[in-house]
Amino acid sequence: MYNYKLLVSYDGTNYSGWQVQPNGISIQHLLQKAILTITKEDVIVVGSGRTDAGVHALGQTANFKCSKELDLHSTLRSLNGLIPHDVRIRNIEVVDQDFNARFSAKSKTYHYHLHLGATENPFKRLYSWHLYHKIDIDALKEAAEALVGTFDFTSFSNQSDRGSAGINPVRTIFNIDVVEEDEGICLAYSANGYLYKMVRNITGTLVEVGSGKRSPPDMQKLLNAKDRRLAAAAAPPRGLFLMHVDY
Amino acid sequence: MYNYKLLVSYDGTNYSGWQVQPNGISIQHLLQKAILTITKEDVIVVGSGRTDAGVHALGQTANFKCSKELDLHSTLRSLNGLIPHDVRIRNIEVVDQDFNARFSAKSKTYHYHLHLGATENPFKRLYSWHLYHKIDIDALKEAAEALVGTFDFTSFSNQSDRGSAGINPVRTIFNIDVVEEDEGICLAYSANGYLYKMVRNITGTLVEVGSGKRSPPDMQKLLNAKDRRLAAAAAPPRGLFLMHVDY
Repeated sequence: MYNYKLLVSYDGTNYSGWQVQPNGISIQHLLQKAILTITKEDVIVVGSGRTDAGVHALGQTANFKCSKELDLHSTLRSLNGLIPHDVRIRNIEVVDQDFNARFSAKSKTYHYHLHLGATENPFKRLYSWHLYHKIDIDALKEAAEALVGTFDFTSFSNQSDRGSAGINPVRTIFNIDVVEEDEGICLAYSANGYLYKMVRNITGTLVEVGSGKRSPPDMQKLLNAKDRRLAAAAAPPRGLFLMHVDY
Repeated sequence: MYNYKLLVSYDGTNYSGWQVQPNGISIQHLLQKAILTITKEDVIVVGSGRTDAGVHALGQTANFKCSKELDLHSTLRSLNGLIPHDVRIRNIEVVDQDFNARFSAKSKTYHYHLHLGATENPFKRLYSWHLYHKIDIDALKEAAEALVGTFDFTSFSNQSDRGSAGINPVRTIFNIDVVEEDEGICLAYSANGYLYKMVRNITGTLVEVGSGKRSPPDMQKLLNAKDRRLAAAAAPPRGLFLMHVDY
């Protein structure tokens, strides 16, 4: 068996997310179908993690095992010819048998784009969360800082449809960069892993701090409470990008 | 009568262009319908120029005349509430009676984005022309330079559906900046006006120079020939943005 690693970018707007779903078209399904056409093998494409419906990726990483030795260059072109243009495979390479896109991941980086301003920019409408009001960036930075480290993030995790019971709720956030960008703010998260909807739940809560509805010290209290009901609603999926996965 | 000037941004992907058309939804139609709802007056919204189906605008400028004195802030909000999110009115102001968005324009700036690279970026697919091959940027710059000045641009103008006969084919291009950007090249055109499809026809021809299919001195010959059949096919609309109009 050969183990192939894929680097994939996608505009998540028109998809039901990464993972194969009973309803809607998933990125994983598209890739598996294209690989079946090329290799005649019914493979499972393992992603570094699920992205929700509407979430985007610049550098999703995945792998699949196949008995055939594939010409990498022509396979890349053929697969891209079989899938829609809002999903592009950027690279394919052969990796060690024990490489698993999900379990081998050491760090994953997500960016969340907040778009600020009196008028929405039509070109950002599908790729950011537009806020009409001002954001106190210093309060937001202070609140974000409180989440950096190794914690039980239960307060920021939704129950998954596959069940969260038994899942270890402890994760390590290495960094949350709060960066001003053109017409907005980018929240750049780097962590060893994320619970279900964790980035969007944290972002929704940080925005409430930046909007003056909560204060930065509330973040520590939220972590301690381990109660999802106390944090804010999830930020919308369209502002979220999986940037890259490190192994 | 009050004369109102609008600054408008739109993602042209889903529209049949600026101008009201028998088939398809135009930006002009959307704005006129929203203004009718707010003011109860059936106005004509005059744009600085038509943009074709699929062409985008960051700073399209338009004006309309109306007998009512409108509260500018609330009108802006109300109009934006009546139109889709891929079209946004960024500003509304009262201007002199003799201001006409089309005829008062002194200079218009368009950007055309070429996206280069072995793999398409899904986030640029609707906003650029993706080329798989390399572009000789020096040849492209040299060819662009030959078009700066006051010339008869017949070779780069399509017959318009409203007829080009009798239209003066002389325009002045003030500048064509050829700027390297992330994963591509931006062609930034500034001129006192443009003939029908002129930017896209010039861009298509410049890309043939950059691709080695034509040489830079061909541009002078093309201008002299005054024959549209000798220039290249138009570049696709999705790479083109009307950036701003100066008065």
